[in-house]
Amino acid sequence: MLTLDKIYHAKYVLKQVIRETAVIKAPRIRPDSDIWLKTENLQITGSFKVRGAAYRMSQLTDEEKARGVIACSAGNHAQGVALAASKSGIRSIICLPDGAPISKVEATKSYGAEVCLVKGVYDDAYAEALRLRDEHGYTFIHPFDDENVIAGQGTIGLELLEQLPDVEAVIVPVGGGGLVSGVAFAIKSLNPAVKVYGVQAAGAASMFSSVKHGAIETLESVSTIADGIAVKSPGENTFRLVSEYVDDIVTVSDDEIAAAILALMEQQKLVTEGAGAAPVAAAMFGKVPVKGKKTICLLSGGNIDVTILSRVIKRGLLMSGRNCTMNIELIDKPGQLMDVSRIIAELGGNVISIHHERANEGSAVNGCYLRIVMETRNYEHIEEIRKALTDNGFHITND
Amino acid sequence: MLTLDKIYHAKYVLKQVIRETAVIKAPRIRPDSDIWLKTENLQITGSFKVRGAAYRMSQLTDEEKARGVIACSAGNHAQGVALAASKSGIRSIICLPDGAPISKVEATKSYGAEVCLVKGVYDDAYAEALRLRDEHGYTFIHPFDDENVIAGQGTIGLELLEQLPDVEAVIVPVGGGGLVSGVAFAIKSLNPAVKVYGVQAAGAASMFSSVKHGAIETLESVSTIADGIAVKSPGENTFRLVSEYVDDIVTVSDDEIAAAILALMEQQKLVTEGAGAAPVAAAMFGKVPVKGKKTICLLSGGNIDVTILSRVIKRGLLMSGRNCTMNIELIDKPGQLMDVSRIIAELGGNVISIHHERANEGSAVNGCYLRIVMETRNYEHIEEIRKALTDNGFHITND
Repeated sequence: MLTLDKIYHAKYVLKQVIRETAVIKAPRIRPDSDIWLKTENLQITGSFKVRGAAYRMSQLTDEEKARGVIACSAGNHAQGVALAASKSGIRSIICLPDGAPISKVEATKSYGAEVCLVKGVYDDAYAEALRLRDEHGYTFIHPFDDENVIAGQGTIGLELLEQLPDVEAVIVPVGGGGLVSGVAFAIKSLNPAVKVYGVQAAGAASMFSSVKHGAIETLESVSTIADGIAVKSPGENTFRLVSEYVDDIVTVSDDEIAAAILALMEQQKLVTEGAGAAPVAAAMFGKVPVKGKKTICLLSGGNIDVTILSRVIKRGLLMSGRNCTMNIELIDKPGQLMDVSRIIAELGGNVISIHHERANEGSAVNGCYLRIVMETRNYEHIEEIRKALTDNGFHITND
Repeated sequence: MLTLDKIYHAKYVLKQVIRETAVIKAPRIRPDSDIWLKTENLQITGSFKVRGAAYRMSQLTDEEKARGVIACSAGNHAQGVALAASKSGIRSIICLPDGAPISKVEATKSYGAEVCLVKGVYDDAYAEALRLRDEHGYTFIHPFDDENVIAGQGTIGLELLEQLPDVEAVIVPVGGGGLVSGVAFAIKSLNPAVKVYGVQAAGAASMFSSVKHGAIETLESVSTIADGIAVKSPGENTFRLVSEYVDDIVTVSDDEIAAAILALMEQQKLVTEGAGAAPVAAAMFGKVPVKGKKTICLLSGGNIDVTILSRVIKRGLLMSGRNCTMNIELIDKPGQLMDVSRIIAELGGNVISIHHERANEGSAVNGCYLRIVMETRNYEHIEEIRKALTDNGFHITND
């Protein structure tokens, strides 16, 4: 049974392994609240997962430790298990589907695990991990539905109450539910007045709908940029704990998550993954009642692929009018490109790319077509440039 | 005269204003050293500048405080002055050239300053600031060449020795030299055995060449992505202090800075601006002798425009083989595009954009031309795809 004792014990054990991450004020996220950030994205391995994994392993018998541990994950859990095992001198094997990104495989290896690439998808890797466990007697480290793992994650709850004793609300990302179970249990055991909210990605809202319907539900598929919380089904322990201790669960869209990732980068200089930014998205977009409340958003991790980050930035820039694409029809005579360039330059638009093409199907035979991508200041700036071009006789078409 | 007393006094005064930023271990930056990061990018306003500005203002007379302060900056100094002034109930006016990015203007306003947009470039804004000072009796807050400002920045030196008492080397970005002067003076006064290195952008190496030649030099122009340290000429105080207390100054290129920005995002989940990442660039690319040494890189700030960040990521991805563009010549017959798509998909390339064009000047009359941008895993992966396409009869041309 999960007890506060166990979480305090985990805190003691983890002292040697993890970093007590800072809680930082974030005044611009939502000016009508007092928002703070628990920076578990700055945790070693870039995610809170190392806490649960390390405490789970500390509770193995010497014989189990000697045999080694196995896990199945392409993400933060893999790195957490790998590092926690290395630090305790335990052998670890991580099963991954063979399509896993090289960067994740390399990171897992770099923390000291043996990586076993399994042909197929996640479920195949999972099946192989169980087979290897049975064959070799490894201990399987579950990513969330395990009391010791939950106790390890719960140490964050203790830290929050120490670091910000007058906190009124805590917002926690929810995938399988290990993190929110531990945090909610710790906080509610010590101070039931503190509200604990869970956040799921709308495209992977398994705990959300399980709690709504009072029974565990399994989604057929999940789709979200928050891969760290893309879980098809909550655990039995976590479902029970969440139902009992979490005040409410809400969902956020991928666009809201992307906006939160961008806000955290611009305003707080912090890189977060989709799951890590989800609580900030919930606060920014009013999904939880935190107006006027001292609120901590738990940034669970920062392991986002930079190619995805690059796309998030691009989308954020587009959505805030700081990047724009215009298609301009030109009459095919000399000097036209120069005129367009001059107008844009004079108004402070910064051209990133130009594509210039003659006589394609969409334009008159003697015309040509200019596609310009430029950096702009905001929507007003785009309108200003658009108007100047139109006033000078250029025709701007939509895609 | 700058004294350790003054820096200790600054530390006492600043306690109410600033955040004591964490020092975090960064094991992957340079495995043969013991690298730590002082996270002043997580300082309020996103930069260390608020320290010097706030201490400078605390030393004004009541009459000077009543009249207000003025500064000229489009960057971190503006935001530091604005916030420090607001916190002390002092009126602040910031002169900016009118071409300054909207985001910087808005940030400066949001911290409570009155913004005065001056037609022209930085030098025009500077002249106007001095004119307004003379006209209204404002106190001009110099960004670096001021003893109290230097004392404020020096508080970081005290913190470093407290937070990592056995540090052996500190690497500090250098623009005008206020930060490195304060930090070096504090550290050398307390423990002369700790090495202090300064880093400049190669495209703005005014302190570097001034120290080399033993006299202040003024550059005609500066060019670097590290706008926070793009300073044409060091100050008189800072030149003297750097000459006396800093062990060596080195330079890093913009590409090295970009690589450091990317490494800090991927490995440490921290957003830094060019100046902030320069010390990490110096460590990564072996510009300073820190092998085997416990070393702190001072991340001075994180205020980088996301459009620039996006370009830095793009360049980093290109340079590490994680993004690639191929131009493929096709015979103009049905099914060719499908074949190319299939080959790339089978090998795990992720197509981002395709441009398909017929009969342009660079290809045969019956040919067409396909330009594909895709995400790849690394250089080997690109070669694998290139080979598969070539083996299937496609001709890949270079740009």
